Formats: sequence, structure tokens, C-alpha cells
Amino acid sequence: MNGAQALITTLVDNGVQVCFANPGTSEMHFVAALDTVPQMRGVLTLFEGVATGAADGYARMAGKPAAVLLHLGPGLGNGLANLHNARRAHVPMVVVVGDHATYHKKYDAPLESDIDSVAQTVSGWVRRSLAVADVAADTAEAIASANSLKHVSTLILPADVSWDEGAATLENIVVQVDPADIDLGQAEAALASGEPTVIMVGGDATGAAGLAAAVRLAQSTGAQVLCETFPTRLERGAGVPAVERLAYFAEAATAQLAGARHLVLAGAPHPVSFFAYPGKASDLVPDGCAVHTLAGPVGAGAALGVLADRIAPNEIAATAALARPTLPSGPLTVVTSADVIGALLPERAIVVDESNTSGVLLAQATAGAPAHDWLTLTGGAIGYALPVSVGAAIAAPDRPVLCLESDGSAMYTISALWTQAREHLDITTVVYANRAYDILRIELQRVGAEAAGAGPGPKAEALLDLTGPTLDFVRIAKGMGVPARRVGTAEELADALQWAFDEPGPHLIEAVMPSIAG
Amino acid sequence: MNGAQALITTLVDNGVQVCFANPGTSEMHFVAALDTVPQMRGVLTLFEGVATGAADGYARMAGKPAAVLLHLGPGLGNGLANLHNARRAHVPMVVVVGDHATYHKKYDAPLESDIDSVAQTVSGWVRRSLAVADVAADTAEAIASANSLKHVSTLILPADVSWDEGAATLENIVVQVDPADIDLGQAEAALASGEPTVIMVGGDATGAAGLAAAVRLAQSTGAQVLCETFPTRLERGAGVPAVERLAYFAEAATAQLAGARHLVLAGAPHPVSFFAYPGKASDLVPDGCAVHTLAGPVGAGAALGVLADRIAPNEIAATAALARPTLPSGPLTVVTSADVIGALLPERAIVVDESNTSGVLLAQATAGAPAHDWLTLTGGAIGYALPVSVGAAIAAPDRPVLCLESDGSAMYTISALWTQAREHLDITTVVYANRAYDILRIELQRVGAEAAGAGPGPKAEALLDLTGPTLDFVRIAKGMGVPARRVGTAEELADALQWAFDEPGPHLIEAVMPSIAG
Repeated sequence: MNGAQALITTLVDNGVQVCFANPGTSEMHFVAALDTVPQMRGVLTLFEGVATGAADGYARMAGKPAAVLLHLGPGLGNGLANLHNARRAHVPMVVVVGDHATYHKKYDAPLESDIDSVAQTVSGWVRRSLAVADVAADTAEAIASANSLKHVSTLILPADVSWDEGAATLENIVVQVDPADIDLGQAEAALASGEPTVIMVGGDATGAAGLAAAVRLAQSTGAQVLCETFPTRLERGAGVPAVERLAYFAEAATAQLAGARHLVLAGAPHPVSFFAYPGKASDLVPDGCAVHTLAGPVGAGAALGVLADRIAPNEIAATAALARPTLPSGPLTVVTSADVIGALLPERAIVVDESNTSGVLLAQATAGAPAHDWLTLTGGAIGYALPVSVGAAIAAPDRPVLCLESDGSAMYTISALWTQAREHLDITTVVYANRAYDILRIELQRVGAEAAGAGPGPKAEALLDLTGPTLDFVRIAKGMGVPARRVGTAEELADALQWAFDEPGPHLIEAVMPSIAG
Repeated sequence: MNGAQALITTLVDNGVQVCFANPGTSEMHFVAALDTVPQMRGVLTLFEGVATGAADGYARMAGKPAAVLLHLGPGLGNGLANLHNARRAHVPMVVVVGDHATYHKKYDAPLESDIDSVAQTVSGWVRRSLAVADVAADTAEAIASANSLKHVSTLILPADVSWDEGAATLENIVVQVDPADIDLGQAEAALASGEPTVIMVGGDATGAAGLAAAVRLAQSTGAQVLCETFPTRLERGAGVPAVERLAYFAEAATAQLAGARHLVLAGAPHPVSFFAYPGKASDLVPDGCAVHTLAGPVGAGAALGVLADRIAPNEIAATAALARPTLPSGPLTVVTSADVIGALLPERAIVVDESNTSGVLLAQATAGAPAHDWLTLTGGAIGYALPVSVGAAIAAPDRPVLCLESDGSAMYTISALWTQAREHLDITTVVYANRAYDILRIELQRVGAEAAGAGPGPKAEALLDLTGPTLDFVRIAKGMGVPARRVGTAEELADALQWAFDEPGPHLIEAVMPSIAG
């Protein structure tokens, strides 16, 4: 057995059965070994950012890692932005970066680069396997570490370690699960204080169980529940306890937190402004509000459960009622597009949301839709939704995936459409085509780079505008094998969604939208 | 004057007048400042890998740096692969990475990451400006360092340093040019030895002057001249001294170097195999051959000139004669497609070559075409040609750019087509559509991962194959505003090239090709 075979065998023996791959020469033994391990599914992506984003989406829905196969430092670089998002999503992932043979590195061949330093910036665990005898143990540790600590484990695999014979797999691999760091006392005292208290859920507390526990505590104590701004996977809709998300814009978030005397963090980070703005506070916690960390992102749901059973044993969490908007008519706007989606969202949908400014009313419009999962842009690195939709669809093949994508963001990882088509994934992509980096038009004002209402100068505006030429997403999608339509009215969007939901496989709908930044 | 204005003013004062940008919120003051500095041209790209590749192409043709504007760590990550290529090309470039405000970093907001560590892996110079008063000096040093040492300088600019007022520009900025490290003695002795000697040109010795000097030396001493495998910018064609490039495959390169007793490196690196292969040597220098470094990549052309004037003062370098292939007919193959390009290559063309396996006969077919520049994949990170073509066209607006791209490689940075269209660049892109990662089919055998001729297993083959669905580059190009045609015969390719060369602006030709790997 060579190193590559030991690696793949150890992966599948430990539950890692999908590999999103964009290989090169140094990974050829890994590629060849796929045919010797039937349990491993290889999924080709045409760009590494699709592979890493797909593994993120897979982990969010499967609750376990996928593997990613990347080619040397440049491949890791191409995958880095979605690894950043995965790091912020606290998902498990096993990244295998093929490298030059150990003895070849000293020659500084053209593709030589410092893989280790780049990998450290996004990984919770990094190891370079230096001998074939180590591959199985290193792989097992990579998986165990990813699973227990919910992070990206990166295994750097030199080509000769991959092709050398003499590897063996391990028996009885023990996956060590570190106990979550939970502090019930402070949270319990805050909830008992009678003072205004906010429970902020995040991490693994945004599933139905964690949300129910938080809402039981809130009902019992008068506390308010908020969800972190960008949850990894938020369960919501009819029959699920409803929680409001902390707003993206600091002004709105500050208003949500105003008056709180206690903030209990259950898996959520300390709330801070996404960006700094001149003269405005970065820390969103109001003066005089004490912050109590119940649990970090891993174990937060369980901690809330323990606390709810102690404080509110007989409380039953209220849940959202089934209540959809009626189908609107007329031109597409942020209002009508959201209502169409709220009216038609399928049962058990997985929504991958990168709608940005076009989606500002989606939360409200879909609050009473049938229960669904909502996946968000955890790390702020755009270009996440198309790849994440690929992984989510592979993890949950019996569920419809609705990928809500912005035109600007779509272009970072557009080749994900090809993998959607190749794998026949049941993904409906809506591209909101407002033909601008609309959020930047807003941010340009908010950071004080232009006087309010003055508008950007012509050179600045040219960097925020996506016309001249207009992107034709129908052609682009068809060019990658995904059937597509363009819509401009609510009626057309509704028709197109029905078409996409009814027919198996991927579809894309270009929804031409007005800019909200004016 | 705020930090952003000081930055841009310092750039233009030092000859950096183009900025390839993909900005976000932390760069909004830079974007706004563009309208206050008329000499700076901002060019929007839809993905950071296009911006960094464009700056590489610009530098190759302009001989001076462009600026690149990136958004935090994920933006740098997206641009990393083409920064890797730029590092290997020894081109000057000034990368500005916007970061969170200095006081905001401690909050670990979602987009926080370790920019510095990632930047170090591709940059010869990295600085984080920490106060507005430092911006002008830091920028000047970034440019001077990039210009003198031909590397990527990365300036990390926190948002508050960008928006703070109180910056001043500098007068009398002295650009320090380090003397190149040149050793004439060893090379002179080798050339005088009468023993078989190879002069390997690379770096800045691959322009017409450096080549002429090398060829004069060869004519005078009986030495042979070879060019490094992947030159940054090779001048060639009628009227230019002709040199053969060292082959990509190690077996062929070994044959080229066989029998040499002296190898004089004039800007080229020590020749090594691109990848390691089991049981084969990585070092391509034959046993018993002494290696003499005349000069590194900077100053090699000048060093050859000094040596030629000393050893071969009266020698006149032979040059290639004008000799084009006749226009072929019939199905497109590696033979006919190369001959069509050789027959029709316009005067003073800039060829950006990422044709990979489809282009194996191009060097021969274009050797007698009118003089042109040939730009290659210096660092091996695919996805370079479309972006580099953008920068080359902006640097040399009066010259036609021919971008020879492979279908697999094209998909990494496909949105470069949109920037081609927006900037009305005179670029003809030929996408060789063999619908496979054909080089990997070859490499899979070469690394011994499969028995010769056995062919890959079905799962391996699926990762090397680009069908199911077939990419439709005509639709994709039109979707980004670039007129496009598909061709399948030599006649159609010739017609399409004439159409593309005759009409201003970008065009794309999808050339459907057979796989050469079988």
C-alpha cells in the first residue's frame, strides 16, 4: 500500500467519504488511488475556491468533514478565501495539499512556495507527513482534530510520501473529543438577576435544539434572544423557535443591544462591528452591560440545554407558525423578490445566502416558510454561496438547495456551476443582478469617504459598477451546462422558481434587480 | 491630505499610474481618492487573481510596476496564485492590501486574518503602515524596492491610516538601485575553455539585446545558447536572434544538456525538473558539467553584453529570417493550429502563452513570424494567461495581444474576459478546448501512478476530464461581453483570427482540439 492509498483508506475508515478535488501532477498518486478505495467519492471542481467552499457546505449539512485535495501553494492560495470562511464557520474539514517530493524541495522548482505558512493562517491543525509510515497516523490525527475541535486540518503530503510503498492503516483509531469549555454559573446568575439580559446564540447553538433551549430560558426569565449576525447553519421557519439575527450595520446592531445589562454568549463571539468606521465604536456592547461567556461555538447548544433544564424545566419553546407571504406581482424589488421566495420556499430547503443588499428583507419574508436551514457568509469573504451550495447538495441529496447569490459575489467562484451540472445537483441558484457592488456604494458613504448624498466621483463609481458590459448570467450558466432564465418581474421569478424546483438538477435564475444604494 | 491620497500621489509621482483593483469596505478611502489624483487609472477586476495577473502582465511589458488593490486577507488569498507567478517572473509590482483599522484588529472581526504571513510568501518587501505620517515614505520604499530588486512589494494599509488626515508626500525620493551581482570571470573562463558549453539565458537576458549578446558569444566560442523553460518575456521572431527553450519534460531537457561540460547561467535558474518523478534525477545538469553563474535574473542581459563586447567584439548575432508556415487546411490538431498561428501572427504581437499540451508545436511554427514577445507561465500556477493579457494590453495599447489559453486553465480566472471587454482591450483569446486536463493524463503515467498505456481508472479519469458537461466558451465569453466564435478546422481558425485581429477590442475563439494524451 502506498501513502496515497493509506491516506484515502484512513479517510474513509474515519467517515470522510467525499473529496472535493482540483489536483495537479504532485497529486497524481492520490488520484490514481481513488480507484482502489470504492467508498471514496471524488468530486472535481475547476477552481480550488469551489473545492474548499464545497467542503464547508458539506460539513455544515453533514456535520462531519469532507476532504479537499489541492495542488501545492498556489492551489492552497486559490482555496484560501473559502477556507477563511470555513474557519469562521467552525466546521470540520481535512485539507490535503500535495507538495513536491521531500528531496525535490531544495531545488526551488517553479511551483515551490511556503505552503506551511499559508496553511497556518486558516487551519487549526497543520502537519507535513515526512515518511510513508506516518501517513495513516497523521491522517487519523487530522480527522480527529477536525472533528473534535471543528476546524480545518491541513495535511501537507509530499509526492514521494504519496507514492512510496510500505504504508499501513491503523486499527482502533481513538478520536479524542475535548470537553467543551462551559461556564454555567455566570450565565445563570445573569438570567436570575431580573435585569435586561440578551442571550446571543451562535456556533452549534443555532440548531433547533439550541434555539429551543435559548427560547425556553428567555420565556422563563424575560431575557431576549438574538442570533449572531452570520450563523453557520440556522434552523428556522414553521415549527422552529424564531430568533432575530444581530444586524450587520453597527447602528442597527447597537439599537438591538441598547439597554442590555447582561449579554450571555452561547456560541456567539463578542459582538463587534464588521468593519471600523471613523468616529464610531467597534465594540457593540453597550456601556454598563456585563458579558458572560456560557460556551464557545462548540458545545454551546448542549450548554443551553443544560441551563434550560435547570432554570426553565417546564417551559415549552414557542415556535414560528406557518405563514407565507402571498405571491406579489409587478417589478422585482427587494420587497417583491423576498416575498416570492417566502411564498415558494420548498419544504426542508437548504438556503445558502449571499444575497447581500438584495436580500435585506428575506429573513422577514421567509420566517413562516416551512422549516429550513439558512447558511450564511460566516467569514465575509465573498464568493462562498455557489461552492457551499455544491457541498450542501452532496451532503443532503434528498433536500432542495436554494442558492441566493449576488452578481458581484458570483463571479469569484462562478465555475461552481459546472460542478453543479456535472454532479446533477438539485440546486436552484438565484443571481440578484443589480449590476453593482451595491454594498460598497453604501459603505463608501458610511466610512465617510464621500459626503452623504454626494455620490462617488466617476473613477470611484467605475470601481463599484458592474455594467459596461452587463454580465449575462443566462449565457454564463448555459455555458457551464446549467439551464437558466432571466426574470424581471415577481411573476416571472415565481414561474422560474417553480420550473427550477420541479425539474431535477441545477438551474439558474438571473433576477434583474434595482440597486438599493441609488 | 489623507493617507489614501498620499499613497496614490506617491505612486503616480514615482511612475505607478495604473491600479488593478478589487476593493472592499476597508479600501473605500483609496477608491474615493482616485478622483483626486487624475494621473492614476483604476481598472476594475471581478476577482483578485485577475488583478494580480494583470499587474504581472503590465510589468512584463511596461518594465515598471502597476499597483494592485486588494481587500484584506481573503483578497490577498484570491490573488496569491498569480502573485506566485509574478514572484517567479521577477517583475516589479506594488500590492496594497487594505486591512481593518489599527484599533479594530484586536476585536477579531469576521474578516480578520494573518495578512502579513501570507504576504511574506510571495513578496520581496512587506510593510504595514501604522501611521498616516508614514504612508508616503512607506509607499516610496515599496516602489523603489520593487523597481530595483524586481519583486512584489506589499504594503498593508489599515483603514484608519488610509482615512486619517495629515499625510504629506515626499520630495526628492531617491530610488536606490542595488548593483547586480555579476561574476564575469568564471563565465569567461568557461567560454574560453574550448569544452562544450551551454549559455542558459533567463531573467532580463531574454530581450533582443541579451539574446544578441548570448548569440555573439556562442558564435565566437562554439557555445550553445538555451533559454530557461519559462521566460518572463522572450523576444523572438524575424530579425531577433533565435534561441531554443529548455524543454519542460525532464527527459527532453536532459537530452538538450547532454555532453555539456560548462553551463553558464545568465539570468536563468539552475535547471531542475519541474516536478519530481520516482527514480529520476531532479537536477538536470549532467554529471561532470560545471555550473557558473554569470548573473541572476536582474542584470543578466547587461552582463552578457559586457562579456560579448570583451570576447566577441566584432561578432554580429545571426537572427531568424522571416518565414511563416503556409496556411493549412483540415481538422484542427496541434500541427494545424500552430501553423495557422504562425501564418497569421500580427506584427509586434504580444503572445501570452498558456496553451500547455495544445501548444507543443507553437515555438517552431512561429519562429519566423514577425518579431513579437512571448510571455510564459513562469511559476506554474495555472490561470495566468487571461489576466496577464489584460495587463499587457494596458501597458502596450498599440500592440495586438494574442492570448493562447487552455480550457482547464481558463476557468481559474475566466472573469478576466469581462475586464477585457470593459477596457476595450485589443486581445484575441484562443481557448484550446481539448476538454481535459490533458497534461495530467500524461503526468499520471509519467509519475508511475498507472502502468504505461493502462489508462487511468474511471474515478481518476473523471478528475482529468472536462466533459459532462462540455464547457461552452462562446456562451461564457458572450456572457461577459466578449464576441466569440467556435472553430473546428484550420480554415475556420484562420477566418476567426482574421476577424479578431481586424476588429478592435477583445475577441475569443474556442478552438476544439483533440487530446494529445489519447
